[in-house]
Amino acid sequence: MPARRKFWGWGEEGSGLGPEEVDALASLLRATLGVEPTALVEPPEVSELELAPPRIEPPAALAPLCRADGYERAAHAYGKSYRDLVRALRREFPAPPDLVAYPESEEDVSRLLEWCAEEDIAVVPYGGGSSVVGGVEPDVGAAYAGAVSLDLSRLGRVVAVDERSRSAEVQAGTLGPSLEDQLRPHGLTFRHYPQSFEYSSVGGWIATRSAGHYATGPTHVEEHVQALVVVTPEGVLETRRLPAGGAGPAPERLFSGSEGVLGVITRAWIRVHERAEHRAGATVLFDDFAAGAEGARAVARSSLRPANCRLLDPAEAMLSGSGDGSSAILVLGFEAADRDVGTELAHALELCRGLGGREGESRAGTAWRSSFIRLPYVYETLVRLGMLAGSLETAVTWDRFEELHTAVVEAIVTAGTDVCGGILVSCRLAYVYPDGAAPYYSFVGPARAGAELEQWDAIKEAASRAVLDHGGTITHHHSVGRDHRPWYDEERPELFARALGAAKRELDPAGILNPGVLLG
Amino acid sequence: MPARRKFWGWGEEGSGLGPEEVDALASLLRATLGVEPTALVEPPEVSELELAPPRIEPPAALAPLCRADGYERAAHAYGKSYRDLVRALRREFPAPPDLVAYPESEEDVSRLLEWCAEEDIAVVPYGGGSSVVGGVEPDVGAAYAGAVSLDLSRLGRVVAVDERSRSAEVQAGTLGPSLEDQLRPHGLTFRHYPQSFEYSSVGGWIATRSAGHYATGPTHVEEHVQALVVVTPEGVLETRRLPAGGAGPAPERLFSGSEGVLGVITRAWIRVHERAEHRAGATVLFDDFAAGAEGARAVARSSLRPANCRLLDPAEAMLSGSGDGSSAILVLGFEAADRDVGTELAHALELCRGLGGREGESRAGTAWRSSFIRLPYVYETLVRLGMLAGSLETAVTWDRFEELHTAVVEAIVTAGTDVCGGILVSCRLAYVYPDGAAPYYSFVGPARAGAELEQWDAIKEAASRAVLDHGGTITHHHSVGRDHRPWYDEERPELFARALGAAKRELDPAGILNPGVLLG
Repeated sequence: MPARRKFWGWGEEGSGLGPEEVDALASLLRATLGVEPTALVEPPEVSELELAPPRIEPPAALAPLCRADGYERAAHAYGKSYRDLVRALRREFPAPPDLVAYPESEEDVSRLLEWCAEEDIAVVPYGGGSSVVGGVEPDVGAAYAGAVSLDLSRLGRVVAVDERSRSAEVQAGTLGPSLEDQLRPHGLTFRHYPQSFEYSSVGGWIATRSAGHYATGPTHVEEHVQALVVVTPEGVLETRRLPAGGAGPAPERLFSGSEGVLGVITRAWIRVHERAEHRAGATVLFDDFAAGAEGARAVARSSLRPANCRLLDPAEAMLSGSGDGSSAILVLGFEAADRDVGTELAHALELCRGLGGREGESRAGTAWRSSFIRLPYVYETLVRLGMLAGSLETAVTWDRFEELHTAVVEAIVTAGTDVCGGILVSCRLAYVYPDGAAPYYSFVGPARAGAELEQWDAIKEAASRAVLDHGGTITHHHSVGRDHRPWYDEERPELFARALGAAKRELDPAGILNPGVLLG
Repeated sequence: MPARRKFWGWGEEGSGLGPEEVDALASLLRATLGVEPTALVEPPEVSELELAPPRIEPPAALAPLCRADGYERAAHAYGKSYRDLVRALRREFPAPPDLVAYPESEEDVSRLLEWCAEEDIAVVPYGGGSSVVGGVEPDVGAAYAGAVSLDLSRLGRVVAVDERSRSAEVQAGTLGPSLEDQLRPHGLTFRHYPQSFEYSSVGGWIATRSAGHYATGPTHVEEHVQALVVVTPEGVLETRRLPAGGAGPAPERLFSGSEGVLGVITRAWIRVHERAEHRAGATVLFDDFAAGAEGARAVARSSLRPANCRLLDPAEAMLSGSGDGSSAILVLGFEAADRDVGTELAHALELCRGLGGREGESRAGTAWRSSFIRLPYVYETLVRLGMLAGSLETAVTWDRFEELHTAVVEAIVTAGTDVCGGILVSCRLAYVYPDGAAPYYSFVGPARAGAELEQWDAIKEAASRAVLDHGGTITHHHSVGRDHRPWYDEERPELFARALGAAKRELDPAGILNPGVLLG
């Protein structure tokens, strides 16, 4: 029997940091924060949970697709945010889905939506379950007869590969590693690597406008989507496969970022690439983050197109094992399938040297990359060690970047000091553009048992206020979900909210799709 | 007094081909088609037109913004398509706007929309007036009390330049040359060159998803839009300036391609570039169009990013003066502000040589470029010489490209032979992508006086059928307007039409905005 996913944390049961890694993490916390971690909280067992009985029962025809056991319901109750981990470790599961449905075809999705619309049952589309913003949490309130988590994992195949047009037709539930496994025999790759890569799906990426393609240029997944199939309560919508088009507003863009409220993305044609054969990478040290940001900006404005161009501040460099904490580090990487990219790297290094950068050990980049994919496991462990640990991200134009950055760090430090007594904040520029950057903030401080959610909310509130007040967006790539609603509502033009609401009423007249997310 | 625009054709009064150019064109028609052109039709004078009197009168407060004289009404009655030129040369103006309004501020736009919504007057937003699909034609039917053409030309300024974020805030009525003139002192360019560049506007580009940025990569204007201001009958919508974002569906994308039916785009923040200092170009000859398409596909799939990569078939090469008609010609151009691009060109040439291409005279590329911008004048003259002349364009993935191309050419030739007795068809790949291409077809044949519109419709109908049946889109960059409606309605998913209609009813409850375009 293959290992199953943890219902309370990241990855498969049994996976995570080993004892030595936990000890090292604890030492790091002592050294950097001067706090003593708690003993590692024991993960919950399904048998410990007191789940309210399901309020609904599927009709006989749909019953074979549905599960209502404790494990399944608990595993679909939360995403993977700090608030989710804390509640799971507390054994608090007040609003699990009543049922988890596993459609095996688009027809199954249609039939499930039809039943739920008739019975006033909320439907929460579930891809890999990696949301950190409450996007898959079926806490839909008493207005619904119940809630179904619609798990798309059985729609996990690459259906067709069109090598001539270098594109692939993929079912929405395909997870990152499986997508790459299925493309590899064709010499192709999608090369989309959000931090959640291991446990996030193609459909989830598109529904949340995931980023992770490159660190520059077309970073977001929707820029690589050729066509979509969306199942709505009113029927199935399929767009035409086109390399580009200009016939009215692009239908794909209405569903990119729609977070399951307009329909269930079940299939996509995506643009894939030949696998890179040529690589060149380096790291550049800068005296501080501001100097490094100028270096990153110069590279982003140039005609070069690095696949990687991520700036780590000194704290981030140290915590990820990429540096000693004395410098900011710009991790540069170029790649191509068809030609040497050494000239591009040399040109980027020249730009950086002109701005005070000096070349560092290239090992640092590798350290950062492996730490990046490993981080969700570290994060889970931090919470189990009694730490308040989180991240938030935004994007802002360069003219306001410095001001925003200063304000966000200050907001986190002030609120964090207030509620935790002290907090460590680090930042990286996760993506850079000619016209701006997407800074990503991580923070860790001691949590107070029982008050974790209030501590978190205080920091998140302060940081989000700073983000919006200084021209940022509430999310560059984590999406809106339920958690970002107040700030999204403020950021989003009111007339656009009305237009979107009207579109939703047309496609989902019973209002069953992911209520509370984005709208309503 | 500055020259004013022709009300019946392209450019300013008095501009166009000189007598020698007209003679040369006539000779070319004799040589290629074996037909004798008619005597040059005299352009109409305003005094010859019999325009129905305006049905509406503006309230006193708006009267200073409005014009109702014959020239203004005639100049806003049509775009610049074949059907438009034919009707104008026939002195047929059955449905001019009752009024032409020239708002000088966004408040003016709001006040005009308010008045029109109250009085059931249709509003047709008008940028540069270069539509070739009936997008600015105020033929709105008897359901409206009248029609106002909303000319945005007095909103023609670059409002702000943010050099640090390399972006500019531009009023929607700014025409191409004026945009470049206003950016030049900052060392910046938008570098968006649709064929209509001289007489098309930033707002019009965005409203129609204009292409013309580069021939590869991010070709469409909406990919370079940072934020939008849209005035709707329900109020003003302003999106947040961001380099990239992921908070819900992108609001800018709902209005990109909305062709004036959801609101009036009045302002945009656009991403601009430093002016190119380094250029390298060449032309490559291929035995035929199919071989050339393989060359273009190889370059599009590579990691190179040519600014120009346009394939002319032998007829297009000859007609534009770029070749002798014996070969297809691939026009390649690389450019960068910051570094030499010779290596890129060399790599592209190597790819082409491997596929049977041989380097041609680089003069050919220059000839094609000057012919490109001059073409609207040539086109106008062809119509005055009694020719049926037109163009249509599409995009299709590579797997279906050859089949589509064969079918479209055959459809034009068959229908053209039927209605004209003979027709000359040429094709270029106007844009190429890793996953497909955007072929652009031009045709010319003898028109029959009085039957021009029926001839045109027969050819357009046959070609459009072939486009849709073979996986193409009804438009890659000419937009939908009124003329493409039957095929757009077929191409667009029905549920998306419903969602868009719902959004329109929310933003434009009285349904006054550009009725008949896209919807309704």
